Amino acid sequence: MANQYDIIVIGGGPGGYVAAIRSAQLGFKTAVVEREHLGGICLNWGCIPTKALLRSAEIYHYMEHAKDYGLSAQGIGFDAAAIVQRSRGVSGRLNGGVGMLLKKNKVDVIWGEANITKPGEVVVSAPKKPAMQPQNPVPKGVLEPGTYAAKHIIVATGARPRALPGIEPDGKLIWTYFEAMVPPTMPKSLLVMGSGAIGIEFASFYRTMGVEVTVVEVMPQILPVEDAEIAALARKRFEKQGMKILSGAKVTKVEKGANSITATIDDGKGTQTITAERMISAVGVVGNIENLGLERLGVKIERGVVMTDGLGRTNVPGIYAIGDVAGPPMLAHKAEHEGVICVETIKGLHAHAMDKAKIPGCTYCNPQIASVGLTEAKAKEQGFDVRVGRFPFIGNGKAIALGEPEGLVKTIFDKKTGQLLGAHMIGAEVTELIQGYVIAMNLETTEEELIHAVFPHPTLSETMHESVMDAYGRVIHI
Amino acid sequence: MANQYDIIVIGGGPGGYVAAIRSAQLGFKTAVVEREHLGGICLNWGCIPTKALLRSAEIYHYMEHAKDYGLSAQGIGFDAAAIVQRSRGVSGRLNGGVGMLLKKNKVDVIWGEANITKPGEVVVSAPKKPAMQPQNPVPKGVLEPGTYAAKHIIVATGARPRALPGIEPDGKLIWTYFEAMVPPTMPKSLLVMGSGAIGIEFASFYRTMGVEVTVVEVMPQILPVEDAEIAALARKRFEKQGMKILSGAKVTKVEKGANSITATIDDGKGTQTITAERMISAVGVVGNIENLGLERLGVKIERGVVMTDGLGRTNVPGIYAIGDVAGPPMLAHKAEHEGVICVETIKGLHAHAMDKAKIPGCTYCNPQIASVGLTEAKAKEQGFDVRVGRFPFIGNGKAIALGEPEGLVKTIFDKKTGQLLGAHMIGAEVTELIQGYVIAMNLETTEEELIHAVFPHPTLSETMHESVMDAYGRVIHI
Repeated sequence: MANQYDIIVIGGGPGGYVAAIRSAQLGFKTAVVEREHLGGICLNWGCIPTKALLRSAEIYHYMEHAKDYGLSAQGIGFDAAAIVQRSRGVSGRLNGGVGMLLKKNKVDVIWGEANITKPGEVVVSAPKKPAMQPQNPVPKGVLEPGTYAAKHIIVATGARPRALPGIEPDGKLIWTYFEAMVPPTMPKSLLVMGSGAIGIEFASFYRTMGVEVTVVEVMPQILPVEDAEIAALARKRFEKQGMKILSGAKVTKVEKGANSITATIDDGKGTQTITAERMISAVGVVGNIENLGLERLGVKIERGVVMTDGLGRTNVPGIYAIGDVAGPPMLAHKAEHEGVICVETIKGLHAHAMDKAKIPGCTYCNPQIASVGLTEAKAKEQGFDVRVGRFPFIGNGKAIALGEPEGLVKTIFDKKTGQLLGAHMIGAEVTELIQGYVIAMNLETTEEELIHAVFPHPTLSETMHESVMDAYGRVIHI
Repeated sequence: MANQYDIIVIGGGPGGYVAAIRSAQLGFKTAVVEREHLGGICLNWGCIPTKALLRSAEIYHYMEHAKDYGLSAQGIGFDAAAIVQRSRGVSGRLNGGVGMLLKKNKVDVIWGEANITKPGEVVVSAPKKPAMQPQNPVPKGVLEPGTYAAKHIIVATGARPRALPGIEPDGKLIWTYFEAMVPPTMPKSLLVMGSGAIGIEFASFYRTMGVEVTVVEVMPQILPVEDAEIAALARKRFEKQGMKILSGAKVTKVEKGANSITATIDDGKGTQTITAERMISAVGVVGNIENLGLERLGVKIERGVVMTDGLGRTNVPGIYAIGDVAGPPMLAHKAEHEGVICVETIKGLHAHAMDKAKIPGCTYCNPQIASVGLTEAKAKEQGFDVRVGRFPFIGNGKAIALGEPEGLVKTIFDKKTGQLLGAHMIGAEVTELIQGYVIAMNLETTEEELIHAVFPHPTLSETMHESVMDAYGRVIHI
């Protein structure tokens, strides 16, 4: 039957399209339902276009410091529209790439909004234009709305920005990441509410481009999921760059002017008001669990996310969930792996559930931040007797040669077994470095094996080696 | 006795000073003999100052492409003297740093040239100014020439540029890395003889700064130790940047003019002449085995390097050798590890000999090149039935966002066991990425474990994951 599939994946984001490709590789007849943009938020309005913006900011930063490198130029400037256009071009190119990958793997794409009417049946209706989100053109060759059948239905619908009551984004003065990604011009000043990865990346981008940036964070620590020591260093660097940071502080009210907002901020000791041209609301995301028919089917949902068994299976046979909609950490790479695990489980391949303690997290601000595993505080909370290693970038020859002497690598070991429990990094290129520790943690590596590894010289990665040696009283370069 | 040590290390390069620090950590009374510059060639005339030059070139390259990133500037230029000054400053700072590290660890520094008069005795004489090498100031607090005793003597004297008969470097028209590192002005044209890491890094630096560069390599493949596929890609990129490359070709004669050289080059089919303002001779290095008293002591030397047992011990009790003088690969990180292993062996700590198959190599040209383990050809030569994975940067979102879409990650597995035998990378930041594979190879990782590792998105490091998946028919993004 034409409308009959082995597996239908609802949502074409990184979790969904990767699950669909793996599904096709395993011989399943597969379709993806997508209502708006292949590649999802990550590729169209998240990870990827922000990295393009941040790349422009990085190079702008170098240009402003050209003299430090023996170089010169006059009239250094930027064209906000051109920076945005480049970013959109990068997303557009990758969006097209996902379409080609699905085609190459013979995965059908059904265009519209999905509703699971009963186990085994998905009814797709015409997509409704979402309230605030610019639209991509519909790819060629997609299937029309209608009724489709599949033995296995994977929900991979992702998440959307959380809105605080009374401070709802309006797309003009109060932005979410959608508008923050495509500023028509650079605002003079910006208030960023929330200092998780999304808030801090935008704060860093706009600050580098010369915007007056204030960050308000309700927790005492910015980047609340990171190790306290790393977050404190990040804060110091941001403040040195001229960012204003208010932590342990809450935006209690926002008044809108003609071309500005005035926010009232309460830090527990008193209130102050800050006026800025624009505001970004970056207070987290919520899973897209609505209008899918999940409640009607009795799919178990807790705290806004679909409950699964770690292999993607919900409590209802034939219904699966992966990625953001299946709970934190809400990260693209977690979604991709969950997609693969889910499909391999359907195939009977005895996939293992992902160990969430070994999923790295990256923030692409300047300086970059990356981590995997337990923070020092969490490790102690869990009862570990820890050994902590630290190595600063200033002790690393490559960092000095690059002109990037500020950074720190912190490693946490279990004193009893020598097992690497966590690694926390701040500094140049750490988002590219962290994978070494991820590989190590997957192999349940101890300090012994990391010390034996020969890290190439001269690289920033030598700081990873020295941090381990520091934990064991053997550090060389400090 | 004041002149009595447990361990004397001859040579204060990366092998020597790291060995000395580790020695002091283990409670040995330790001295280093150095005649010229703490940190050795690596820190003063090698790895480090070239990375500083290449950083200036990298940023100059970005500036020239500012428009691609939505940025603008006029009159982009450079000041060769300022670029060199920055590079010297980086070396000077790190040179001072090594002095401080030795002091902090209570390692004495004896200034001069060492001769091992008998096992247990080192006679240090006043340093002779080397022929072509600019001098650093003598650090404060060093000990004077004289006779010193030590139970254990570690030879860590490094290597120097090899000179071809008839094409000897003269420091004016024919440079070694010493002069190439400190050009008084940029030459208009440059002939680079030798396409190993040193030759190619200089070729890349000068080409980026606008110099007409010709590279002559005697082997059919440039970067002869790298995987053939990676070397071919590198060549293509270099040629696209305007570099002229002659491989399978030999410089048979060099005639000197007033301000240029004319080289006769024979490629086996015929000869041609190339005239260039300057020439760099980068045809390898030779170990500094002379004037140390090694022959007199009967220390076994073969093919110009000191023979050891893998733990630093020579055939003469009490005499050890590490680093370049103890044979290839002549890399700083190999020297450092050998130094640590040697000292730990002296301490009786049951150190393991280094597995030379797991030492990474990096070339910091544009694009960067990094590798570890066996090439495809070598793996086949050794009788392995291989599985090869490939993943191009063009399939990676971060590479596209960075504007660095050209690169390749190639992985070689043993088909029988799934063991990772080698990894070969070309592209942005691969010198920082390779450590993940190094860690994996140290743990004798198979494809299974690498596939399970969750690499962060969006990073270039995802190409490392996809290359492994490609080897096993599971690649997602191509």
